[in-house]
This record gives sequence, C-alpha cells and structure tokens, in this order.
Amino acid sequence: MKITANDPKRKSWLKVNKNSDFPIQNIPFGVFITKNDIVTIGTRIGDYAIDLAALHQLGYFEGIPLTDDIFMQDTLNDFIDDGRKTWRLVRNRIADLFDNENTKLKDQSKHIVEILFDINEIEMLMPVAIGDFTDFYSSKEHATNVGTMFRDAENALLPNWLHLPAGYHGRSSSIVISGKKIRRPYGQSFPKGSKQPVFGPSKLVDFELEMGFITSVANKLGKQIPIEETEDYIFGMVLLNDWSARDIQAWEYAPLGPFLAKNFATTISPWIVTMDALQPYRVESPKQDPKPLPYLQLEGNNSYDIKLQAAIKPKKEVETIVSNTNFKSMYWTIYQQLAHHAVNGCNISNGDLYGSGTISGSTEGSYGSMLELTWKGTKPIKMNDGSKRKFIKDGDTIILRGYCKNDKIRIGFGECKGKLRKAKYFKDKE
Amino acid sequence: MKITANDPKRKSWLKVNKNSDFPIQNIPFGVFITKNDIVTIGTRIGDYAIDLAALHQLGYFEGIPLTDDIFMQDTLNDFIDDGRKTWRLVRNRIADLFDNENTKLKDQSKHIVEILFDINEIEMLMPVAIGDFTDFYSSKEHATNVGTMFRDAENALLPNWLHLPAGYHGRSSSIVISGKKIRRPYGQSFPKGSKQPVFGPSKLVDFELEMGFITSVANKLGKQIPIEETEDYIFGMVLLNDWSARDIQAWEYAPLGPFLAKNFATTISPWIVTMDALQPYRVESPKQDPKPLPYLQLEGNNSYDIKLQAAIKPKKEVETIVSNTNFKSMYWTIYQQLAHHAVNGCNISNGDLYGSGTISGSTEGSYGSMLELTWKGTKPIKMNDGSKRKFIKDGDTIILRGYCKNDKIRIGFGECKGKLRKAKYFKDKE
Repeated sequence: MKITANDPKRKSWLKVNKNSDFPIQNIPFGVFITKNDIVTIGTRIGDYAIDLAALHQLGYFEGIPLTDDIFMQDTLNDFIDDGRKTWRLVRNRIADLFDNENTKLKDQSKHIVEILFDINEIEMLMPVAIGDFTDFYSSKEHATNVGTMFRDAENALLPNWLHLPAGYHGRSSSIVISGKKIRRPYGQSFPKGSKQPVFGPSKLVDFELEMGFITSVANKLGKQIPIEETEDYIFGMVLLNDWSARDIQAWEYAPLGPFLAKNFATTISPWIVTMDALQPYRVESPKQDPKPLPYLQLEGNNSYDIKLQAAIKPKKEVETIVSNTNFKSMYWTIYQQLAHHAVNGCNISNGDLYGSGTISGSTEGSYGSMLELTWKGTKPIKMNDGSKRKFIKDGDTIILRGYCKNDKIRIGFGECKGKLRKAKYFKDKE
Repeated sequence: MKITANDPKRKSWLKVNKNSDFPIQNIPFGVFITKNDIVTIGTRIGDYAIDLAALHQLGYFEGIPLTDDIFMQDTLNDFIDDGRKTWRLVRNRIADLFDNENTKLKDQSKHIVEILFDINEIEMLMPVAIGDFTDFYSSKEHATNVGTMFRDAENALLPNWLHLPAGYHGRSSSIVISGKKIRRPYGQSFPKGSKQPVFGPSKLVDFELEMGFITSVANKLGKQIPIEETEDYIFGMVLLNDWSARDIQAWEYAPLGPFLAKNFATTISPWIVTMDALQPYRVESPKQDPKPLPYLQLEGNNSYDIKLQAAIKPKKEVETIVSNTNFKSMYWTIYQQLAHHAVNGCNISNGDLYGSGTISGSTEGSYGSMLELTWKGTKPIKMNDGSKRKFIKDGDTIILRGYCKNDKIRIGFGECKGKLRKAKYFKDKE
C-alpha cells in the first residue's frame, strides 16, 4: 500500500506557516483535552489540532476497519494495536481530507467547526500508556565521551559496545509529557574529598537529548523478531529528554546501572510522528566495523536524517541553543535495537517506549548532554543572558526540537520542554 | 483497626491439612479461571479456591465500601487501589465467614456450591497488571559472593552497597505466573579463549530465589515517601524466580547493568500473601553498620521470618532440594527499599513489583542461585536421581517454596514453578 500522505505536492486548505513542523505531509498522532474538557485522539496540521473522534463520528473514515470508539480514548494504545496497515489507511485518509484539491470536508463548515481547534486552546496529554521503557546507549560519540571522562581515552568504549546495542530498563511511571515541570531530585552522592555519602538535592542535574520510538505488540514471549520484520512494529517517534542527576549517578551506578539518577523524570514530546512520515528522510547509518552478528544485519538505509537541537531558557530570559546534532549519526539503528531486544525471547508490547540514548555528534557543539558539552563542568557554556552554565539551574527550561527537511518538505516533532523546579523535601516547610 | 483474621485460635469449617500453606489465617489474594471459563478474584483456604466475586454478589461483604464489580476483574489492581483499610476489612470478613464458629455461610449449602472450587479444578492467572518492576540486590551474602567471584574477596562489596539498597529496573512484559514454561534464551556471550562474541543458546541458565512485594499508588511524581509511611502502600508478597543467563550477563552487563540476561522471564507465585497475614512473623533485620542515612532509618522489627526453599526437578525424576534459606537474612528491608526508591521523587504506582534480589544465607546450602551454590560451576550439585548440575538443564523444573511458622500457625506462599524448555530460534525447523 502506497503512503500517499507523503506526496510532496500536496497542500492543505488549512494555513501552514513555511517553517511549521506540521505540514499536511506530517499527520502525527497525539491525545489532547479541549477547553470543554473533552479528551480525544487527534492530529495536527499547521497550528490546528484536529479531533479524530469527531471526524470519525461524522463518517469521514468510512471504509477503514475501525471500531466506533477507536479515537474516543485517552491513549493511542488501541489504535496502535490495529497495526501498520490501519495506521497507514488513516493517515492517507486524513491527508486526502485536508488536501486543497479535495472539497469533501473543506466545504462542510459546520463539520469543520466541530473538529478543528486552535493549537493554543487545547492541552496535550500523554499519547500512550507506556508499558515498558528501555533506554539504549547507541551513540558511539556519546559512549566514547563518557568512557573517556569516567575511565580513560584508550579504553573509552567497553569491549561489548561495538558488538551489541547496549541498553537498560528505565522507569515507565515517571515518563511525562512536554510542559510538565520537573523537581530537582534529592539523593545520595559521594562528593570528592568526602568520607561519607551525603544526602541533599542533586547538584549536577543534566538533560540528555534523545529520541524514542513506540511499538505495537511484536512477538510472544520466547520468540525472536527477525530484523527484517522489526519495522512493521514501530508506530512512530518522539523527542525524549532523559533527565539525569550526574552526582547521584556516579555514586549509585556500579554494578547495576543508572537508577535513581534517571527515574525521577523522562520527558517526551506530545506528537508521535509516524515512521511512514519519516520515510523520505531515511539515510544510511554509520558503517559498522566489526560487522555485527547476523541477527543484527539489515541491508538498506536504516537511519533517519533528523536535525536536533537543545536549548536552555533561564527564567525570564532568552534561550541559548547549546547543542545542534543529528539522529543520523547513531551507530546502532532502531531496527537493530528492536531485534536485539527480542533475540532472547523478550516480548515487545503495545505502547513500549525505546529511547535512543544521548545523541552526540563528533564536534563539541553537537554533544547531547551538559556533561559532554561542558566536559564535566570544566568548560562552562556562556549563555545569551550573560550567565554561565555547567549543569542545569533551578528555573531553567530545557527545550528539545527536531525536524527533517529535504528540498521539498520539512516535517518535525515540535518541542519537548521541561522546567526544572527547586528541590523540595517532605520535611521542608511549605 | 485490628487484624482479627490473624487470630491463631480460629479454625475453618473447610478442611485444612496440617502442613497446608493456606490455613484460615492466611487469606491470600489471587486471580483464577474456572473450568467454565469464568475469571474471578479469589482467595484460598486449604485446597479450596473461593470465588470472591460470587461471595460479594451474594451479599457477604455488606457494610464494606466496595464497588459491585471489584472482584469481577482479571487483576487485583482496582482492589489494591481501594487501600489498606479495605484490604483489611475484606480479609477480616473472609476469616469470619469461614470460621468454624460462624454458621452464616457454613449453613448455606447452595451458596457454598457457587463460591467454592477444588484447587485442582481452577487455573491461576497473573494476579496483577504489573506497572514497573524493580529488582533490588539486598542480600549482603549474595552481593559478597558475586563480588568475590567476579572481582576479589577483598573488594567484594562495592563502596555504595552498605549505604543504599542497590537496585535496577527490570522488564514487566516478561513476568509470568507460576507454571508457565520458560524458553532457554538465545544471545551473545564471550566464552573464555574466544576472540569474538558468539551467538547461540545460553549455556548457563540459572534461577534466583527471591521474594517480591506489590504496591498501591504511594506518592506523586516529585514527592518522597517518609519511611514510616511506606508500609501503608505494600499490599503483599510473592515468591519470585529471577531467571538469569550468566554467560549473556557476563558479556553485556557493563556499564548499564543486566538486560537480556534477565528480561527473558521472571516467574512469580500466584497467591499474594498480604502484609497483614505476615505480621506475626516480623523479626529484627540484620544490624546495619554503618548506620544508614536518616531517610533510611526505621525503628522496630522490619524483616520477616520466611523459610525458603529451591528445588530442581529433572524431567520424569524426583526433585532435589538445592537451597534452604530465609528472607530474614536480607540486609536491606522492604521499607528501606521503598523509601529509597522514592527519595528522588520517583512515583510508586499501583501494581508495581519490587524484587528483593537473590536471597542467600551465610552457609553454602543457603545460597539462592546455582552460580553461588556450585561456585560458578566449580562444585556441581549431586542430584537425587544420580545426575549432577552446574546450572539448569533443559527439562528441569525449578520450584521455589516459602512459608512462615511459629508455635501456633504456618502460613505460606505455595509454589513458584517454571520448567526450562529447549532453546528455539526462528530459523530453526519446527
């Protein structure tokens, strides 16, 4: 089945600004609540949010096998369960309905009033009920930087790193939607020169610029997923900020990996951009040497050219862009990550979230965390408001952005934002 | 409110064998399916499963604030959401109804037929929809054994171990109920003397004898849980087998912790024994030196005297008990684990599962894994059928058992069983 929604010649009868992340070729999926407290599944074109439940009730999805209430949900999980063919049919249909050449919906002003919302009049909610969350560690540059800082440059990459997409399990309960404020965590750390661990607010709160993908059910427990089939089970992608407390992490992480240093919050962007929408931006992934084991081999262009940016906006001040990087630099692809995850029979479920790991390029300005950008705080960043940053300060908002662009079309992810609030302990006075 | 269900003088009008894990003082909660395909929440006395949905419909929970369908569910999550006071009211009521001195239900033979099932005529299902799964590492003996084997005896415990209950996130999707067969996992390992990682079935599949506790919602994201309040949020405990592939683990675990070595399966026992039922068996936990930080300090008897056993039953042969140990030896308590988990503001949810980590005592026969029992395979175990075991063989069934016993009453967890099946790759011929 063709992905007709991607046709670069399409224009919508809805106004779309030139630099919008959401032209008619995007058609992402999300969940929002209207000012009348109605929760619905929707999509976005330009600065309009579109209520898909209302559109479905009006009969515009006729001919596509969908249950009546498929979009009257507070998560996309059931829709994801319908599978790739249905995702594609729905996305193609939406593109047709909003195509400037098509008058079917365009002329129904009463219907339009029912389904269309100004993006500033709605609030985005978590798009999926997340099952399991796994975070990979797939940027060679990031792993090398971290290894150099914490061990030594000669042995920066551990022996397993080039043979498998290293990953670990994260916490699902603390994954939040863009806009939700994050508390600076309390915890144990072991400052240099100290004789005992100390307890208090983390002093080294960091962001990690990542992307995440969301899956449908893919395999039963005990079965693998052939790498050629992995893409059938990936619904779409989001921006992901893997908030990290470096002082807590340094003290706790051996030998079981990061835990409280990470699980206080993970922020994702609200609109899931489908893998179908990203198809025009597929590019070759970095050459892998040594050649991976057969279960990780996949021919073709398996990475995506997604331009990424991280900015810090201090309270009441202008933002400073601290990182410009690109998803295509990731050494391990999302298909390799998923095939590896299931090679032992681990079952991949509906609504699982898989993070890429910090996305760092090969140049200093392209690193995806303050840890690397300031090289452990030794090279503070000069901010546009005159202040300096080693790590994140209370009141700072971290903003991640990402988009794909070729000579014809730009599609993007919008923003993934979170403001860091002052730490608070239950024994503190209100 | 008194836990009247625990009264040791109670006897049930249902027959209970002397060594049963399920006298009227237990009243665990579980989910089962009858031979008529009815799924219900239930409890167990002796060898009878009791349908709580039917009991509720017949009016026997009158006066307790419960929704009509609270037991007509395929998980306990909604009941857990009702909170500790309700758990206690329900358990006390059940004890009253089945008390030999009480004729209210005893004399209603028509009702009894509706609610009672022979334990062999039902099938147990997963008792909860598990949100997040965290596995701790709280046995000092286990951590010391593993540290000695993989590093050296002098530095067996890492510096953080005595200061915090180390833990990491596990996989929820692959947690299964006792009885479900487990596939030996495929994966990468790096055998001694090899120049490259190899791919194939794990050669070192192991069990880990653990216990797990299940929580209700406890805190909002960004808030801590004072350690004194943690016990309000713990519903009950189960036996837990944290299946592990030691060869995969050795190759993959640095620096992010265990991943595919563990997430192919975790087995839990089907009946959740409530914390109320376990109260009579509270005992002092091991003295902690150094004294933990204030947020981890809690007065009183905070461990539980639970006798534990692991057995291996080869196909068509008699079983061999390979470990006898006790939960009370755990260095970090469940209350410390939960307070630590939330100290950074990580939100604890309904249906979360928290594993203790392998429970190893101080003597050789009390270790909770084959890794330790056979000291990395160097001291094979002699089995009752004449065979030997370094790790688990295809066809072996691992059986965990646990019970508490004082001079009056024995209550237990039943069995947590799983049979290891031969590895199978998708390219293998059927």
